[in-house]
Amino acid sequence: MLDERIKTLRNTLKEKGLNALLVSNYYNILYLSGFKTLVDNEREAWLLITENAEYLFTDYRYASAVHNISFITPEKRLIKHLQEIVEAKNIKTLGFEAEDLKFNEHQSFRKYLEKTALVPTQGLVMNQRGIKDEEEIRKIETTCKISDQCMTDVIKEITIGNTEKEIAFKIEFWLKKKGYDLAFYPIVAVDENSSIPHYDTRSGNDKMIEKGSLILVDFGAKHNDYLSDMTRMVFAGNPRTEIANQYNYLLESQIKTLKHLKVGSDLKKTDSFCRKEMRSKGLNDYSHSTGHGVGLEIHEYPKMSFLSEDKVEPDQIITVEPGFYLEGKWGMRVEDTARITKNGAVALTKFTKDLLIV
Amino acid sequence: MLDERIKTLRNTLKEKGLNALLVSNYYNILYLSGFKTLVDNEREAWLLITENAEYLFTDYRYASAVHNISFITPEKRLIKHLQEIVEAKNIKTLGFEAEDLKFNEHQSFRKYLEKTALVPTQGLVMNQRGIKDEEEIRKIETTCKISDQCMTDVIKEITIGNTEKEIAFKIEFWLKKKGYDLAFYPIVAVDENSSIPHYDTRSGNDKMIEKGSLILVDFGAKHNDYLSDMTRMVFAGNPRTEIANQYNYLLESQIKTLKHLKVGSDLKKTDSFCRKEMRSKGLNDYSHSTGHGVGLEIHEYPKMSFLSEDKVEPDQIITVEPGFYLEGKWGMRVEDTARITKNGAVALTKFTKDLLIV
Repeated sequence: MLDERIKTLRNTLKEKGLNALLVSNYYNILYLSGFKTLVDNEREAWLLITENAEYLFTDYRYASAVHNISFITPEKRLIKHLQEIVEAKNIKTLGFEAEDLKFNEHQSFRKYLEKTALVPTQGLVMNQRGIKDEEEIRKIETTCKISDQCMTDVIKEITIGNTEKEIAFKIEFWLKKKGYDLAFYPIVAVDENSSIPHYDTRSGNDKMIEKGSLILVDFGAKHNDYLSDMTRMVFAGNPRTEIANQYNYLLESQIKTLKHLKVGSDLKKTDSFCRKEMRSKGLNDYSHSTGHGVGLEIHEYPKMSFLSEDKVEPDQIITVEPGFYLEGKWGMRVEDTARITKNGAVALTKFTKDLLIV
Repeated sequence: MLDERIKTLRNTLKEKGLNALLVSNYYNILYLSGFKTLVDNEREAWLLITENAEYLFTDYRYASAVHNISFITPEKRLIKHLQEIVEAKNIKTLGFEAEDLKFNEHQSFRKYLEKTALVPTQGLVMNQRGIKDEEEIRKIETTCKISDQCMTDVIKEITIGNTEKEIAFKIEFWLKKKGYDLAFYPIVAVDENSSIPHYDTRSGNDKMIEKGSLILVDFGAKHNDYLSDMTRMVFAGNPRTEIANQYNYLLESQIKTLKHLKVGSDLKKTDSFCRKEMRSKGLNDYSHSTGHGVGLEIHEYPKMSFLSEDKVEPDQIITVEPGFYLEGKWGMRVEDTARITKNGAVALTKFTKDLLIV
């Protein structure tokens, strides 16, 4: 699988007239080499893909984790290795990831690689990651099943008197106890907090569920490095007609939008389709995108927004998540992670979207 | 406090001949404004500090979280706001964070701010964060106390038959149940795994504690955005003499190194002092630094390594963490988070360093 991924990338490099690409992004390195360092926000590894070889630069701490590894040592840094390889392999054009490389890293490369053209590239690996291969799809399917099971179990534990953080905690511990992880810190938003599209449960006011409360639960699992993303609405007792109607209209729009996703069409058209559906049912428009790719990261290509230039393609994994927000009152969102097949979108998160009453 | 921090930064900007600084780093923004977005790895906020005003740019989702906020909307992006302010305030020299700004972000600024000199700066805010103010010290003290209490409680639960992940889970569970967080995923390394200085418990082989096992526990708490960092060795039954001696030599070296930290001296001297101490006792040198600053992030200024150019200064918060590793056999590390005072270093993590036997 990794060989295939690198082969595809090499074709892209050839098209772009690049002899090599220096990959700095943590998730791109993981995608291409299977290698990851302890944390994703400290520069601990680099991957160089040339026309016929791959070099992984990291430090001695990871020595046992990779084969054919090239070490960065305090005495001989990445840049020295790079200089040697660039010279030995006669690399004239070296691409780098312009959306990831820091300004001062670029300055340093420019200084040490005087004879090489450093070419900014944009989203080469990210774009490739937008279309998942079999192994990735299998992993994401598994993670989606995990989140379904998590929701099934956790919902039985949600009762009046619980606070937002308590519910987020239940989700987190269900996952971690089984050796899984969170894709992101869960958004659990009760009543008026649910009217904030990206309510931060961690720093919020930890509202308690009362009789008649409406609870938005947006969470994802992480397993084998791959993520899922799902939002469900839960009601503490039968919701009143106005709210039940809004929920049903929202759900209808979400389901129709899933059906609207056809290979070859523009994602921005699906985005506007969903908004139009909502408006036609008297629901306010929402101030976020209709969906986003999911994989190693929670926000990947493609994007489904009015700014999107992406098309629907087979084996994209994308969320569909319209929402309806009444500022200061309440909000709702329904979200699935779906796979694009040649016959349309198939939701991988299969937990029921029927009115959930606890 | 925030006013003081900005005032100090303005003095630095004046010294550097800068009219303004555009702060992009998540933690620097948090430090200067108290504002944070949901995640630290997506560019969701910018902070502009001019000679007499501060502007926080973020999107509508955070509208309720900040006062005097400037919004980035899809229609009017950061760059348009920046153009307006730069023009209105006659900003001739605009600093940016060269170690944080991405190559393509810089390209975009250069394109839109043609008449302004964009000046790369290195570590202006990071350096300032190396010296903690009263509020920060109070918060870090609290977090260190939390990790002491966590260790006190968790150690009672460590028994033969536990695996590494189970112990890491106990630590995580203890913290999160009380509403705290992990500073980083705990390193729990049993027997030969402890010989890997930065063993990754999450992707490791989850070794089980047996009679006679040696367990390295390196973890930190997070509370009020501030972190702690501590390592203790735990032994399942009385260690044999060789190991007990090594532990005592290591501990002696760690304690002596804490005492060696004197205001005004070079941190690289303390680093080499510690290594010399270890060698004089027959212990191998270790392949990591002797310590690092801790605060909002787990690795901050100052650094205590042979490459460090930092001096010991009052109100630095720094770890002291020598280690001793016998490849493939076992390893040990003892680590405290300490505050530098005018009378020397004071460990803030106070959990006992006596031989811990479970």
